[in-house]
Amino acid sequence: MARAKLSGFPEFLPAERIVEQQVLAALQDTFELHGFASIETRAFETIADLTRKGEIDKEVYAVKRIHAAADAPAEFGLHFDLTVPFARYVIENAGKLDFPFRRYQIQKAWRGERPQTGRFREFLQADIDVVGQGVLAPHHDVELPLVMGEVLEKLHQDFKVPKATMRVNNRKLSEGFYRGLEVDEPMAVLQRVDKLDKIGADAVVELLIAEVGMSQAAAHACLQLASITGSDASFVDEVHKLGVSHPLLEEGLDELAAVVQTASGLRPGSLVVDLAIARGLDYYTGSVYETSMQGFESLGSIASGGRYDSLASDGKNTYPGVGISIGVSRILVPLLGAGVLRASRSVPTAVLVAVDSEAERAGAITLAAKLRSRGIPTEVSPTADKFGKQIRHADRRGIPYVLFSGGEIKDIRSGEQFKIDLDSWCPPPADLHPQIIHS
Amino acid sequence: MARAKLSGFPEFLPAERIVEQQVLAALQDTFELHGFASIETRAFETIADLTRKGEIDKEVYAVKRIHAAADAPAEFGLHFDLTVPFARYVIENAGKLDFPFRRYQIQKAWRGERPQTGRFREFLQADIDVVGQGVLAPHHDVELPLVMGEVLEKLHQDFKVPKATMRVNNRKLSEGFYRGLEVDEPMAVLQRVDKLDKIGADAVVELLIAEVGMSQAAAHACLQLASITGSDASFVDEVHKLGVSHPLLEEGLDELAAVVQTASGLRPGSLVVDLAIARGLDYYTGSVYETSMQGFESLGSIASGGRYDSLASDGKNTYPGVGISIGVSRILVPLLGAGVLRASRSVPTAVLVAVDSEAERAGAITLAAKLRSRGIPTEVSPTADKFGKQIRHADRRGIPYVLFSGGEIKDIRSGEQFKIDLDSWCPPPADLHPQIIHS
Repeated sequence: MARAKLSGFPEFLPAERIVEQQVLAALQDTFELHGFASIETRAFETIADLTRKGEIDKEVYAVKRIHAAADAPAEFGLHFDLTVPFARYVIENAGKLDFPFRRYQIQKAWRGERPQTGRFREFLQADIDVVGQGVLAPHHDVELPLVMGEVLEKLHQDFKVPKATMRVNNRKLSEGFYRGLEVDEPMAVLQRVDKLDKIGADAVVELLIAEVGMSQAAAHACLQLASITGSDASFVDEVHKLGVSHPLLEEGLDELAAVVQTASGLRPGSLVVDLAIARGLDYYTGSVYETSMQGFESLGSIASGGRYDSLASDGKNTYPGVGISIGVSRILVPLLGAGVLRASRSVPTAVLVAVDSEAERAGAITLAAKLRSRGIPTEVSPTADKFGKQIRHADRRGIPYVLFSGGEIKDIRSGEQFKIDLDSWCPPPADLHPQIIHS
Repeated sequence: MARAKLSGFPEFLPAERIVEQQVLAALQDTFELHGFASIETRAFETIADLTRKGEIDKEVYAVKRIHAAADAPAEFGLHFDLTVPFARYVIENAGKLDFPFRRYQIQKAWRGERPQTGRFREFLQADIDVVGQGVLAPHHDVELPLVMGEVLEKLHQDFKVPKATMRVNNRKLSEGFYRGLEVDEPMAVLQRVDKLDKIGADAVVELLIAEVGMSQAAAHACLQLASITGSDASFVDEVHKLGVSHPLLEEGLDELAAVVQTASGLRPGSLVVDLAIARGLDYYTGSVYETSMQGFESLGSIASGGRYDSLASDGKNTYPGVGISIGVSRILVPLLGAGVLRASRSVPTAVLVAVDSEAERAGAITLAAKLRSRGIPTEVSPTADKFGKQIRHADRRGIPYVLFSGGEIKDIRSGEQFKIDLDSWCPPPADLHPQIIHS
């Protein structure tokens, strides 16, 4: 009566979860080192809030009490990202928050879409945003990608998660360029250019001509713009060579040049200009970011975001901000699935205390408590079986040490057995907690 | 255009969330010290799994894609506890888990009920369970309440969360007693006795007579049983004095006496016998636990659970277990609401680096990176305003220190300013991270 797993809802085995826990701890540590405060929001938002941006409503899961009338419309749905809930949270609590408000938020989100590789119906996301009241200084457009870059570099250094490259564009630059080509609906162009990776340049040109009504020359100019990349401000000249001019284009060029120059001054190579970056969502109004993971480019962007002039408005104030979201499930599910990352054991336990007989269990419990009081994760053997069987219990879980009632401890990997002082012995640091192993 | 908060869905402000984070870290630490492995399960279960126990189906939130046909029945709902999902997880992964399997699980759950004080429609719960394949030794009935007791004691010691008292009964004892009174449906009696706290003894007696059809004498005997408490095995004689006998009663008395004796040998006073403990759910088959928090008894039980002979069955095996669930929201929402607990600041930041002018921001960023590299949470001032204004920025958030470009640091609480060595200075431990304050 084995049951099939539910597709699109990744669930980890305990050893995989240990990897996820350590990755999340690394994210949390880095975010907090940079002064981001944690918040969590409820899973429910009103359907009205969730469907405000037309593009996404098809993916919303609606929620209704099981005994509500069948024809009663659903009032709530599950959030499909952490931005809609964050906007609502900021408006609801504006009077109690200090701006600029820096928050991180690590939570699951849900989308009712057809599952495909790298896409989930339930997934874990980690977002950082800085939001101002009325205004937000431009230097945060550099700060946010650098914090995310630091996180991704830490995952690479500590856990051998593949290296990531963060790329940046500016929405004003693209929009200004399209307007300079006399396009009335720059979003329509942007949405087609966004398909470049999926369908290729020729198909995008065809769409721009057929669906947006651009001339062959204008469509080609858009593709030429999208082909420009660079790691310094030299892209500005390349754009100018395309012969398009518009005030918004110049504003975007200035902003993007400032971002990439400041970023490379602070951390060389941290941000790459890529004028193909489009981002489907229409609330971005300036810098936009995407990130690819080396060897896993087909996953799409693992960390994306951008600047928005107005996350939300409560009538009195607007709340401009800049934020980046890292797709924790999108990174971990394939890496764990491919066995690239694994934990050195499936339990937190470093020491199993053997039990001589059920009558002497209390003594083993007392020994275990001694080790725990010094921070050593310790279990007492669930049975008083022969020691060989108790050792196998440890071995199956990867628990490195078995402690016997006489005060002798056995490293079950080497077979070495030695007497310890219960009030001072500690396992080597690498054995104290499970380690992430890269293979 | 301020919006009303959604009732029954608690959301914390950043400073409150810091308290929750530290409480959760204490739970996680303790669980892991005892060798419990973390798992998380998806929010969705099939409606069939969620409504298997008839008592609860009225509270389930059903989930459906917003664009699914209006008359299509919902296939999934949100879990209302962590036990149903854990049972499904064990069955699905039985071949990959090592038994006895010790897991903890800290996740939100949802119930579509009318909100009332201490009851939520979304709430955070932390569960520990030990589950065997086929068999599970009785000593885990002592272990689990002791681990939860250690957690609650730690919350009391570290954060001044009010003291908690865990009480224990045994389902066999109650059921055996009722059967000894010739009751055919002991669950019907149990469900009425479970209302003792809410409606009082006289009303329960009335219900037992009117609804279960008991005699006056038998109903009174049930109430006498429920009035027995104690901290050692003396309760056994008290039960015997009621003159009821049944083999299942004797089995329950033996089990409960062993649990309370072993527990008080290991940690005196950790478990109190209370034969009024009933637990509504019908899957418990042995020990049952409830916990009250001093001064907050009206919240009901903050940590509950019990022994079950069969969490789940996959045809080949049954999975007996014992588990306890702590109501994190049930504890924290009232304590934070009443101001009993609060955080010393609203951000993780210990140091704000002042910025002399926008042109010199890069220097401030470099100073901040130095402190962060030694684990000191540090923000750079978002503006290059007058220092007084930058200090107020720190003050509003409770950030204790402001660092100036010359290497002088100011403790903004005392006003004291001194030169530091950027490569070695650390704030005192009490300032490094936000502290939980009890008031």
